[in-house]
Amino acid sequence: MADVDAALREITRGTAEIIPLEELKNKLSSGRQLTVKLGMDPTAPDIHLGHTVILNKLRAFQELGHKVVLIIGDFTASVGDPTGKNATRPQLSREQIMHNAQTYADQAFKVLDKDKTEIVYNSQWLGALGAEGMIRLASKLTVARMLERDDFTKRYQAGQPIAIHEFLYPLLQGYDSVALKADIELGGTDQKFNLLMGRELQKDAGLEPQVVLMMPLLVGLDGVKKMSKSAGNYIGVEDPAPDMFGKIMSLSDDLMWSYFDLLSAKSVDEIATLRKACLDGSMNPRDAKIELGREIVARYHGKEAADAAVNGFINQFAKGAMPEDMPELTLAADAIPQLLKQAGLCETTSEAMRMIKQNAVKCDGELITDKGAPIPEGTHVWQVGKRRFARITKA
Amino acid sequence: MADVDAALREITRGTAEIIPLEELKNKLSSGRQLTVKLGMDPTAPDIHLGHTVILNKLRAFQELGHKVVLIIGDFTASVGDPTGKNATRPQLSREQIMHNAQTYADQAFKVLDKDKTEIVYNSQWLGALGAEGMIRLASKLTVARMLERDDFTKRYQAGQPIAIHEFLYPLLQGYDSVALKADIELGGTDQKFNLLMGRELQKDAGLEPQVVLMMPLLVGLDGVKKMSKSAGNYIGVEDPAPDMFGKIMSLSDDLMWSYFDLLSAKSVDEIATLRKACLDGSMNPRDAKIELGREIVARYHGKEAADAAVNGFINQFAKGAMPEDMPELTLAADAIPQLLKQAGLCETTSEAMRMIKQNAVKCDGELITDKGAPIPEGTHVWQVGKRRFARITKA
Repeated sequence: MADVDAALREITRGTAEIIPLEELKNKLSSGRQLTVKLGMDPTAPDIHLGHTVILNKLRAFQELGHKVVLIIGDFTASVGDPTGKNATRPQLSREQIMHNAQTYADQAFKVLDKDKTEIVYNSQWLGALGAEGMIRLASKLTVARMLERDDFTKRYQAGQPIAIHEFLYPLLQGYDSVALKADIELGGTDQKFNLLMGRELQKDAGLEPQVVLMMPLLVGLDGVKKMSKSAGNYIGVEDPAPDMFGKIMSLSDDLMWSYFDLLSAKSVDEIATLRKACLDGSMNPRDAKIELGREIVARYHGKEAADAAVNGFINQFAKGAMPEDMPELTLAADAIPQLLKQAGLCETTSEAMRMIKQNAVKCDGELITDKGAPIPEGTHVWQVGKRRFARITKA
Repeated sequence: MADVDAALREITRGTAEIIPLEELKNKLSSGRQLTVKLGMDPTAPDIHLGHTVILNKLRAFQELGHKVVLIIGDFTASVGDPTGKNATRPQLSREQIMHNAQTYADQAFKVLDKDKTEIVYNSQWLGALGAEGMIRLASKLTVARMLERDDFTKRYQAGQPIAIHEFLYPLLQGYDSVALKADIELGGTDQKFNLLMGRELQKDAGLEPQVVLMMPLLVGLDGVKKMSKSAGNYIGVEDPAPDMFGKIMSLSDDLMWSYFDLLSAKSVDEIATLRKACLDGSMNPRDAKIELGREIVARYHGKEAADAAVNGFINQFAKGAMPEDMPELTLAADAIPQLLKQAGLCETTSEAMRMIKQNAVKCDGELITDKGAPIPEGTHVWQVGKRRFARITKA
């Protein structure tokens, strides 16, 4: 039982919600190898750290000897959104689906144990359903219940169209759990409705219902929104090592602890020790952040690259040194904001002016405070924020 | 064009609504043989006169040279209502479906021209749809639009469950029109939403949309409700000739004209002449009713049986005579109500008491007014209402 308790502590760590916890306990105590399900959307194969929160949890199940099944949603991806209105559900060719699944797997296996992972395609069972099976599946739920799903409720109340087939997709996701006899399904808290669907359909089919384990959504670099590609606040697992490390170092101290909880392989106790040290002043939070960054970069790029990223960062920022490599440009501009924009150090001249106002622009290490100051002749190193540099020669 | 005008007059006669009339005109003028669709529900194969309103209209299309296609809804009947909650949509075996389809066809061919009728089974194309086709079909309509269907609106507002598959059936009915390239679909006014669905799906598939032709619902013998088996106010096409005739003679004079319009093969002009004669007193409405009854009974039982039914009726009621044949029974009962129930003249003793109170019970032609009166010894003819007789010997 001590083993089960330890397992339970590891599995429940950082979770947002488990439905129901008691059944998870029973399953973990059963001694069986459990089947842990994660659905993969083949329309978005690029993995960022937000996705790895769940992958890490799957890895924890693998460490306990359980089997992870990645379901590639090729059936629905091959149908797509027949109305063509849903940009997040384009219709994909078989080649695109296979390619995306491979891309996803390559990245996922940086976290998951390949030998304890099975990859399956849901067209295998959904293709065999037929129109008749689809009708039977649709009979399992009421319109009212489906309209309770958060996003459906909002759209229906706002008078935005919901095509009827959109009601079928959550049922198909649930049916995957039936076909797979999944013991546990993982997802983000935004997937609660769909995850519970699997539970309901399994019960209806006379199977032991799956436990639903939801992970919190990782907050992105902005500290506000859920990490996502579209919000631009993400750290991709394919980001180059120095970028990845630099992005982690840019996290606020508060956010850092959430990343520790959700992304680090350190034990709960180790993290508590670090935190305590930062709180009582015996450790600089920056050093804890470096540890976090080193661990995460090492996971995706290896130890050597991680150490190099740490050293590079320390040289550049901690010692105030400039990076060895930076763009060398010759530019003709009328004013400093235009120059910074042309050099690509700022997106727009307005951003450049804002950065100057915020004391974030330097020329050869000297603060620029006047956006109207003349551009110095010759070649100088310009810096915006902490990490943007360019060596610019006035034309 | 005179022909088209005449055809249009015949086709529009008695209709409740045609959507759109202009397109019907165009189709009738095209010179093409039109495909006129009627869906048949294989769960309810018994035809009553209410159904023949539409069959008569199909017959009118056939007289004009057009082709009638009866679609047997075997696909949906074989799925049934998977929730098992909908008694009107039981799941049927292939044998039941074939048997019901045959029963329906046997009755329908008393009205339709067999040579101009094609019978098809919708499993032919719906079976081939697959889950993917079902999803694509479901994408054609929004939840909001489907909830506009009268019965769905009411159920949703009343908080009664609507299973999601119920949204799929109207789409399947509409898809039948696509598969068939139907020019015209017939139905009752209560089918408007589903009939229009065929029109929408045909447009979406780039086909010429079908014209929707709705017939009024025939009011049943009670003069109030739509004729239906469940309301018990119907005249079945398999009813024995004397019953059928007697039921028609029991219609109110008002209702008779509606039956003339919707059921008689007489021309509009002939009916107008009859009606005028009844109004100006030159004809007894009873004689018009006899003509209607004779025509309808002849359609389902032949001219001879119709004449016999008319004569039997005239002998029995007009002359007040008793029928030649009636059940002969020997019964032991304590009181008259029990006796009438045992003889099958009343369903229950309460009904018997009610009939006595309404002066509707006679013994040897003498009114029985006291439900407590003793049962006379020997053999007597008992009569309840106009048409129920039995010759009963007291045991």
